[in-house]
Amino acid sequence: MVIVKTDRTNAVAGQSGGPTAAINATLAGVIRGAVRSGRIDKIYGMHNGIEGLLNENIAELNNIELSLLENTPAAALGSCRLKLPAPEEGEETYKKIFSILEEYNIKYFFYIGGNDSMDTVRKLSVYAAAHNPDVKIIGVPKTIDNDLFGTDHSPGYGSAAKYIAATIQELCYDNAVYAQKSVLIVEIMGRDAGWLTAAAALPNLCGGAGADLLYLPELPFDDEKFIADIESRLITKPNIVAAVSEGVKYADGRYVCETAEKKSIDIFGNTWLSGTANVLRRLVSERLGCKVRAVELGTMQRCAAHIASLCDIAEAAAIGERAVEAAVSGVSGVMMVFRRVSNDPYKTEIGHEDIRRLANTIRKVPEVYISPEKNGVTRECLEYILPLIAGEPDITYKNGLPVYHGVIS
Amino acid sequence: MVIVKTDRTNAVAGQSGGPTAAINATLAGVIRGAVRSGRIDKIYGMHNGIEGLLNENIAELNNIELSLLENTPAAALGSCRLKLPAPEEGEETYKKIFSILEEYNIKYFFYIGGNDSMDTVRKLSVYAAAHNPDVKIIGVPKTIDNDLFGTDHSPGYGSAAKYIAATIQELCYDNAVYAQKSVLIVEIMGRDAGWLTAAAALPNLCGGAGADLLYLPELPFDDEKFIADIESRLITKPNIVAAVSEGVKYADGRYVCETAEKKSIDIFGNTWLSGTANVLRRLVSERLGCKVRAVELGTMQRCAAHIASLCDIAEAAAIGERAVEAAVSGVSGVMMVFRRVSNDPYKTEIGHEDIRRLANTIRKVPEVYISPEKNGVTRECLEYILPLIAGEPDITYKNGLPVYHGVIS
Repeated sequence: MVIVKTDRTNAVAGQSGGPTAAINATLAGVIRGAVRSGRIDKIYGMHNGIEGLLNENIAELNNIELSLLENTPAAALGSCRLKLPAPEEGEETYKKIFSILEEYNIKYFFYIGGNDSMDTVRKLSVYAAAHNPDVKIIGVPKTIDNDLFGTDHSPGYGSAAKYIAATIQELCYDNAVYAQKSVLIVEIMGRDAGWLTAAAALPNLCGGAGADLLYLPELPFDDEKFIADIESRLITKPNIVAAVSEGVKYADGRYVCETAEKKSIDIFGNTWLSGTANVLRRLVSERLGCKVRAVELGTMQRCAAHIASLCDIAEAAAIGERAVEAAVSGVSGVMMVFRRVSNDPYKTEIGHEDIRRLANTIRKVPEVYISPEKNGVTRECLEYILPLIAGEPDITYKNGLPVYHGVIS
Repeated sequence: MVIVKTDRTNAVAGQSGGPTAAINATLAGVIRGAVRSGRIDKIYGMHNGIEGLLNENIAELNNIELSLLENTPAAALGSCRLKLPAPEEGEETYKKIFSILEEYNIKYFFYIGGNDSMDTVRKLSVYAAAHNPDVKIIGVPKTIDNDLFGTDHSPGYGSAAKYIAATIQELCYDNAVYAQKSVLIVEIMGRDAGWLTAAAALPNLCGGAGADLLYLPELPFDDEKFIADIESRLITKPNIVAAVSEGVKYADGRYVCETAEKKSIDIFGNTWLSGTANVLRRLVSERLGCKVRAVELGTMQRCAAHIASLCDIAEAAAIGERAVEAAVSGVSGVMMVFRRVSNDPYKTEIGHEDIRRLANTIRKVPEVYISPEKNGVTRECLEYILPLIAGEPDITYKNGLPVYHGVIS
C-alpha cells in the first residue's frame, strides 16, 4: 500500500504477542475510535508490531471493513515477539522509533498485547515521558491467558474460554459412549495461570457436561493425588474427563512435561510446553490399566473465531475505541482496563491504570477460587467466568466456511 | 426406563463404532421413520449397540425430543466395538440375539455404524436369512472416515470435513502472524483413507486459507520429498501449513508414527495411531531449522457438533428415515446408501446395496483425485467434498454454550 504522509495529527496501532480471536476486534475499535475522534487524520498500522514500525513497514487503516475485521481471528497486521532493550541501554532504538513517529506526525501510539507487549508499552512510556511527552502511549490488553494485572479480565480470554468449555462438553459426550471405564486427559494452554483450565468446568455450572477434575498451574502437581482423584471418581462414574494445564509442575519445580521432551525457551525466557497430557496418559494407563486417551486443545484455543464469545468481541472493540478517547484527552503511559460493576446482570466499566504498576507481573487464579480438594474451582470462580462467554457473534458463512478479513497489506 | 413389551410389531436401533456429529441425527431419523410408518408400535434402542441387546439393556425411544437429538454429538444410546463371532462358530450368540428380538416382537433391526459395524450387519443378515427371515436387518452408514464402499459418501463425514476445513483456516490465520518462516503440521484422522485430510484444502477452493500441502495414507510417505516440498513452498510463502493423515506409512509399510511410540492394536486388528505430526515436527526442525509446530485435531474431529454441516445432519436423518421405509417394505440384508445425481446443484438419491458386497472393504481416495505432485488433491476432489459441508444447523445456545440432548437412559 502507498502511504500518503500528512501534516495533521496521526495515530498508529500495533498487535503483539500470541494471536487471539479478539485482537482484531480491538484493532477495529481503535480504528473506529480514531475515525470518530475528529482529532486524528490518519490511523496507521504497524506490520508485525514494533518490528514493523522500526522498519517503516506501515499500513493505512482508515478504510478497513471493520465489521468483518472484528470477527477475524489472529492478528491482521501481523505480530511480533520483539523485546525492546531497556531505555538506558538501547537509546538508539528509542530515538529511531520516535523519529519515525515524528516523520509520520504520529502523536498517538496504541499497542495491543499481553504481558510481554505491556513491557514494551512501559518502556516506550518511560522514554516518551522523558523525551517526547507530546506522544501519548497506550497499551490495550489482549491475552487468552487472562493473566494481566489491573484489569478484571482481558479481551481474548472470553472467546478462548468459550471454545474450551464448548469443546470439553463435546469431548465429554464423545468420551461417554462406551460402557467400559475410560479416562480422557485434556491439555489446556496456560503456562502460569489456570484461568483457561478453569473454563473446562463451565458446562457443569449450567447443567451441561464439563470436566470432572481440573489441575491448575497454581498448585503443585502430585502424581499420587492425580491417580487417587481419578480412582475415586471412577467408582461412581465410568467415564472421567480431567483438564490439565500445560504448565503444571511438581513440588520440586519440574514441569510434568519435562519427563517427555526437552523444554525449549523463548526470547522472553518463557518455557514452551507441550506433552503434559501425554505424559499423564501413560501414567494413568500404567497405574490404572483402564482405557485412557490424551487430547491437546492446541492453538485452536486462541484462534477458534467461529465460536468466539460475543461479549468478548464487543468488549474488545469497545476497549480499543475507549483507548483512543483516553489518548486524545491527553492520557499516556497507561493500560486500558475493565472494572466489573456487577456479575448478574453483568456490567463493566472501562478505565485505565498506570502501566508502571502493571507490567511484568502475572495474575494467577486466587486461592479462594480453588476448591478445597485442590482438583477444581469454586462456583464463584465459574460465576466470574460465565458472563465472559455469553453470546454468539454473527459470523458470515460462505460455501460452508466462515468468511474472515484477509491479512492487511 | 421401564420397558412395556407389546404384542405388536416393534423395531430396534443401535449405534456402534466411533461416535460422530451425525450419528444421533440418523437415530432421530430412524425413530421418526418408525413413528411415521404406521407399521411399528415400539421403537427400542440398544444401549451400547449389540452388547446392550445381548444384555437386554434396552430403552424405549418413541418419545425422544428429535430436534434436539439431531444436533447432539456422540452416540446418545452409547456405542460398542463388540465383534460378533462368525455365524458358524458362535451359534449360541445368534440364538440369543434372535430369541431376545422375538421376546420383544422386534421384526426390524437397524444398526448405524462404519465398516466394523457393517460386518455385524452382514453376519446378522446371513443368520436371519437362514433362520429368522421375518426379521429385517438393515445397516445405516456412519463414519467420519468416509471409507464405506457402495455409497457416494457417509453421514458424519460432512460434519468432520467442515470442522477440519474451518479449523485449518483458523490455524492458517494463526500461523501467519509472525514475519519469520514457520511450518505448521496438522495431524488429521484417517487410518487408511485420506478423505478427512483432503478436507484441509477445502478453503483454497473458495478463496480462503487452507493447507498448502496434504499427505494422504493412500501414498507412501517419503521424508525427503516432504522436506523438499516444504522447502520449495517456503521460497514464495513464509508460513506453510501441511496436513498429514495419522495413517501415513513409509514405502516399507512402517507407520511414520511408529518411530515415536509403540503402536497398539484394537480388537478389530486396527492399529491405533498418534504422534505422526510430532515425529514430523522434529524432522522439519532438525532439517530446516525453522520454527515448526505440531497440532493434532484429535477426537474433536468426530464430535464438534457446534460446527456440524447442515447438509450432513439433514442427510443423516433422511437416510435413517428411509431405512425404516425400506425395512417395512420387506428389504433386508442391505446397507442404505447415497447416490449422487449432480454436483451443482447438489442432489442425491437414497438407495440400498446388498450388505454382502460391501462389508470389510475400505474405500480410499482414488488416484484421479490425487494431484500429480502427490502432495495435494485435485479440484474435482474438492468439488466432490464441498457440497457435503454446506449449511449450518440451528444450534440452541444457553449461557454461551450449545444445548445438547442428554444420554438416553
